[in-house]
Amino acid sequence: MPQFTFDIAAADGSARAGTFHTPHGPIATPIFAPVGTQATVKAVTPAQLAELDASLVLSNTYHLYLRPGADLVAEMGGLHRFMQWPRPMLTDSGGFQVFSLAEMRKIDEDGVTFKSHIDGSTHRFTPEVSIRVQEQLGADIIMAFDECAPPYDRAYNEHAVARTHAWAERCLKAQTRPDQALFGIVQGGVFRDLREQSAAFIASLGFPGHAIGGLSVGETKAEMHAMLEVVNAVLPAEKPRYLMGVGSPEDLINGIARGVDIFDCVLPTRLARHASAMTRTGRLNLMNAAFARDDCPIEPGCACYTCRTFTRAYLRHLIVAKEMLASTLISIHNIHMLLQLVRDARQAILQGCFADFADSFLASYRPRGKHA
Amino acid sequence: MPQFTFDIAAADGSARAGTFHTPHGPIATPIFAPVGTQATVKAVTPAQLAELDASLVLSNTYHLYLRPGADLVAEMGGLHRFMQWPRPMLTDSGGFQVFSLAEMRKIDEDGVTFKSHIDGSTHRFTPEVSIRVQEQLGADIIMAFDECAPPYDRAYNEHAVARTHAWAERCLKAQTRPDQALFGIVQGGVFRDLREQSAAFIASLGFPGHAIGGLSVGETKAEMHAMLEVVNAVLPAEKPRYLMGVGSPEDLINGIARGVDIFDCVLPTRLARHASAMTRTGRLNLMNAAFARDDCPIEPGCACYTCRTFTRAYLRHLIVAKEMLASTLISIHNIHMLLQLVRDARQAILQGCFADFADSFLASYRPRGKHA
Repeated sequence: MPQFTFDIAAADGSARAGTFHTPHGPIATPIFAPVGTQATVKAVTPAQLAELDASLVLSNTYHLYLRPGADLVAEMGGLHRFMQWPRPMLTDSGGFQVFSLAEMRKIDEDGVTFKSHIDGSTHRFTPEVSIRVQEQLGADIIMAFDECAPPYDRAYNEHAVARTHAWAERCLKAQTRPDQALFGIVQGGVFRDLREQSAAFIASLGFPGHAIGGLSVGETKAEMHAMLEVVNAVLPAEKPRYLMGVGSPEDLINGIARGVDIFDCVLPTRLARHASAMTRTGRLNLMNAAFARDDCPIEPGCACYTCRTFTRAYLRHLIVAKEMLASTLISIHNIHMLLQLVRDARQAILQGCFADFADSFLASYRPRGKHA
Repeated sequence: MPQFTFDIAAADGSARAGTFHTPHGPIATPIFAPVGTQATVKAVTPAQLAELDASLVLSNTYHLYLRPGADLVAEMGGLHRFMQWPRPMLTDSGGFQVFSLAEMRKIDEDGVTFKSHIDGSTHRFTPEVSIRVQEQLGADIIMAFDECAPPYDRAYNEHAVARTHAWAERCLKAQTRPDQALFGIVQGGVFRDLREQSAAFIASLGFPGHAIGGLSVGETKAEMHAMLEVVNAVLPAEKPRYLMGVGSPEDLINGIARGVDIFDCVLPTRLARHASAMTRTGRLNLMNAAFARDDCPIEPGCACYTCRTFTRAYLRHLIVAKEMLASTLISIHNIHMLLQLVRDARQAILQGCFADFADSFLASYRPRGKHA
């Protein structure tokens, strides 16, 4: 699939600044992808996302398969047209949600049978079903069907890695659309040898990009960093690397420092719906009474619509009054914060100053925040 | 107050096309004002409202007095700055909400004592308090404190009219800011003689504009039309007339035909939150399964962002999936629908063709809609 080229403009230590080309345009990396679980980034219009200069947006196969149904999305012209996001999109395989959200699940070597969390109806996902559904949805990047095991369970991870590998091969065979980049996924919990073995096997299959799954699911930060180093030493440098489900500012910087190119997470929009604003120095809980008469924007100097326009006092009023505009305005800010962070990281890489940039960011960033 | 001039560019029958000048810019009439109860038009950003070319926005004194408090809004620079709506604003007196929302209310000749619907705390509104609070909020148009009685209760309406008149005089005396246009309110239920008497008395006080209260509160359409004709025959033609709380398309057209210049209503945004779209031919309940695979916009040919961008199928998906973007997108459409309707009515008046315009609109409009 020659259309999915990845040009690396600069490398700085393990960090890289690149461009991944897709049928819906280029993705400048490192990139953070906002999540539109049900074909909408919650509370934000595509016009607002475009104003934020978002590029890649993720949507969840499990959710869309159940509602409104992949056949309906296909009939409406595919996910890009359905939700009117004209830039690159990524769908996950549905595997993670089947394991974490579905009400009942029975795994066998062939696939997973599960009950819908919406209406209890029974469904079955296999690697072939996942690929067929993702081809109906039509994202630019699609994901292999994998199994994510609890990070510290050695025996479970051995089985999950074996299954993930067998399923990766079946996904490659099942793929029919040449205009979608299918990424393989590395598993292995917190076990170095399993991670190395998984990265080597997945890399051998010739995917146009690779993902690192099963992190940020309960392990420590030190373990996450160690696993990233182990895996990225094996995965080929010339293909993009995607750290799935990771999106806190410090995780982005630490991931980029270890060679990750793509991130996604519900964090900015989920925090926004809980009145929490992400800033360069930590989180602000805007519900806090300290902000009742605060005339400053969320983050002075921030270029987003919310910070250019509204005070913390107004945002706090909207939150206390349970007005949904609060979710919209804080989501806009939080997404902007992460997009600007990866844009700044990219520039620092291009300038050969990423280590400096990362050090000063991490030195002033307190994950808990001032009023978290 | 010479800054509140009302220029009538054209009259066509009883309908008029005018311009009411305020410190925050001109209002081209007839106009529909979206309602931002708690200093936000629900689910819509000021940028989206500006894109719809909304001019006048209403906010509720009762709600803002209770939360976040008028003193806080004043400290933050007033309502325009607090919610970042730079165009004209109107606040009501709080009277209607005290009578309809507050948990307990005791009316006497001096004012009303009530308990907050939020926390049960006790408060007292008098004409003087209402004006002071509205001066703190700082809208361009403020309203006299009045009493709205049940439409068919003759004795109650006689008392309410007398109290409304006494309170109107006290409001005029209480007003200190010269940069706010204080409108007097006509009451009288469905009783012609009370309405005539009220219109004559209120008109005699020299307000820069007049409102008609106590309609669309349970009386028939025929009674509403009759009362508008009675009242507007008495109110001076050279000042703007505001029909409070009215906002269905047919009521707007029928009101304009009878000399009304200003309308406000929560209808477009409330209907939107209940999946109901307003069109030129009636309402669409977008939850209806008939729209599941409907590739058309809400209203083909409509110029709003929602109709330029999204299908009914997508909107129905958002509604079924309980995504708040549905409220935003349908609110945008519904507000646009009413704003475009009054813009078209204005043009028809300027062209001397309002009767034709109103007849053809009402002939094709079915209030219940196709899938209501």
